Amino acid sequence: MRVYNFSPGPATLPEEILCQVQAELLNYQNLGASVMEISHRSPEFEKLIVKIEADLRDLLTIPNNYKVLFLSGGGRMQFAMVPMNLLRGKKTADYINTGVWSKMASTEAARFCEVNVAGTSPDPETWQLNSNAAYVHYVANETIDGIEFPFIPETGQVPLVCDMSSSILSRPIDVSKFGLIYACAQKNIAPAGLTVVIIREDLIGNPIPTTPTMLNYKTHADNNSLYNTPPIFCWYMAGKMFAWLKQQGGLEIVAKHNQTKVTKLYQYIDQSDFYLNQVDKRYRSWMNVPFDSIKPELAGKFLQEAQQQGLYGLKGHPLGGGAFRASLYNAMPEAGG
Amino acid sequence: MRVYNFSPGPATLPEEILCQVQAELLNYQNLGASVMEISHRSPEFEKLIVKIEADLRDLLTIPNNYKVLFLSGGGRMQFAMVPMNLLRGKKTADYINTGVWSKMASTEAARFCEVNVAGTSPDPETWQLNSNAAYVHYVANETIDGIEFPFIPETGQVPLVCDMSSSILSRPIDVSKFGLIYACAQKNIAPAGLTVVIIREDLIGNPIPTTPTMLNYKTHADNNSLYNTPPIFCWYMAGKMFAWLKQQGGLEIVAKHNQTKVTKLYQYIDQSDFYLNQVDKRYRSWMNVPFDSIKPELAGKFLQEAQQQGLYGLKGHPLGGGAFRASLYNAMPEAGG
Repeated sequence: MRVYNFSPGPATLPEEILCQVQAELLNYQNLGASVMEISHRSPEFEKLIVKIEADLRDLLTIPNNYKVLFLSGGGRMQFAMVPMNLLRGKKTADYINTGVWSKMASTEAARFCEVNVAGTSPDPETWQLNSNAAYVHYVANETIDGIEFPFIPETGQVPLVCDMSSSILSRPIDVSKFGLIYACAQKNIAPAGLTVVIIREDLIGNPIPTTPTMLNYKTHADNNSLYNTPPIFCWYMAGKMFAWLKQQGGLEIVAKHNQTKVTKLYQYIDQSDFYLNQVDKRYRSWMNVPFDSIKPELAGKFLQEAQQQGLYGLKGHPLGGGAFRASLYNAMPEAGG
Repeated sequence: MRVYNFSPGPATLPEEILCQVQAELLNYQNLGASVMEISHRSPEFEKLIVKIEADLRDLLTIPNNYKVLFLSGGGRMQFAMVPMNLLRGKKTADYINTGVWSKMASTEAARFCEVNVAGTSPDPETWQLNSNAAYVHYVANETIDGIEFPFIPETGQVPLVCDMSSSILSRPIDVSKFGLIYACAQKNIAPAGLTVVIIREDLIGNPIPTTPTMLNYKTHADNNSLYNTPPIFCWYMAGKMFAWLKQQGGLEIVAKHNQTKVTKLYQYIDQSDFYLNQVDKRYRSWMNVPFDSIKPELAGKFLQEAQQQGLYGLKGHPLGGGAFRASLYNAMPEAGG
């Protein structure tokens, strides 16, 4: 029996994708070998990744002047790659720190430049942006805190950089508003081990001199993400997910499902005498719903009983948010919510 | 039907491992979820990685004063991480460049320090080592050139660093002779997306100031390689491979199998009037056998017929070695050789 898996990432994957992967695990496209065993320079893999990128471009309507990169290293590697590549001679960058992940991103950036914490809430009225900043960084959805931007910040000529790890593909977005979007795979894309970067072409190619070749976006942009042996299996899994989202009818429809699921959960929490979610209602996350019980002493019992009922991964993060957290990524069926 | 897959990496995996993975793909250890979907902080995963490290330590008899790290980014990332972490105030490093990969490693290192190319053959008589070098780097087996060290270089007090990507676990080695060993997974360990680093503890913790947190060995050593979400599926696959090697009876026995397989192939090539391998017999690789035909015009026909016979991945590398290459990693059955 499959459980309802509310883990924040690595997260649940659609059962039909896992079944496809299982069926072709020893013999990919009748090659007599697993997809894990074929060369990243084989015609079969090259054909696969062309389709994967086309599907992602189609889902997100990515403009032609953006490159899509498939990298390793997770979001944490991007915390360094963003300043190393995007400072481009400037000395300072703006960070809007709405939670645990944006704070970690700005701490890493401070090793390479002066960081201006331009705000600590998604409310633009409270921000103090610096027009000389190399870029403005924010985290679209704070996975731990359960805080999400319901809009895209306006930053004028200053490139906007977004960690979209836990909300990418959950709804349509206007990619043209961004300089760079990055997202680790293990929430809405694929198993852990892959990071997708969408970058406007004019921002590629001027990293600080001490940037390792592997951390230079140009290295990967110039080589179609095949400079080194890529995480083939995760990339292949991302392709399954993109195809699955297209099958659902695209991101407008996916967004409706996600909104329905999460609205139901917030309504239940808000009407309950036992649970509460303390996030400002304007900024409540669609993806991660942290909540507490008014009787903290019963938290252990709640988690134990949930697991017995086939509800897995509901424990909150030790760094904050709440004692519990339900993550409702695209792959969580409505019955789970 | 499974083909005999001679690919140089991503490489063939043991069929029995793929069958196990297939069987438990939707339900790992009766959790009702795939191993790809569980948290890297779950008790199940923590238990798994303790066993994986113990198995690797057992196979290679890794001394207690060495840390084992499971990282992402491949061998190419190590080309930068090694100088960034091991220069430790020194300005120069020695590189023994016996082929394509060692040359690439030294080119990347030259971005961080002065590189002394101390030799261009595995013959120690030809080397000019610098006693002030921060470390000596070599590539145990050149995957493209088919050149392998049949011994471990002696470097006295200067730490020895080895790219063991394509020969690790093919035979026993004396880890205590090394300061650092690194190996990407996609040859003898697991699917692409994981890199194993074995590092002597005293070499950890003094990187150059511009080193990103993710490229600092200390970050991963201090967090049991769980600082960020790791490539869980590849790590799990590495565990399957280590357990499989132990089941074979350990590396002494694995080495005998490998030697038998490759000796047969070299004998066949040497006795043939049609094929030739041009590597100095003292340094012929056990893992990758590049060869040419004396009638280069028949190369295409040979590859086509080989594929029809179920022999996959025999094409040579465009950067050198030979028109053909057979990779005989641990997972290649003797019938394939």
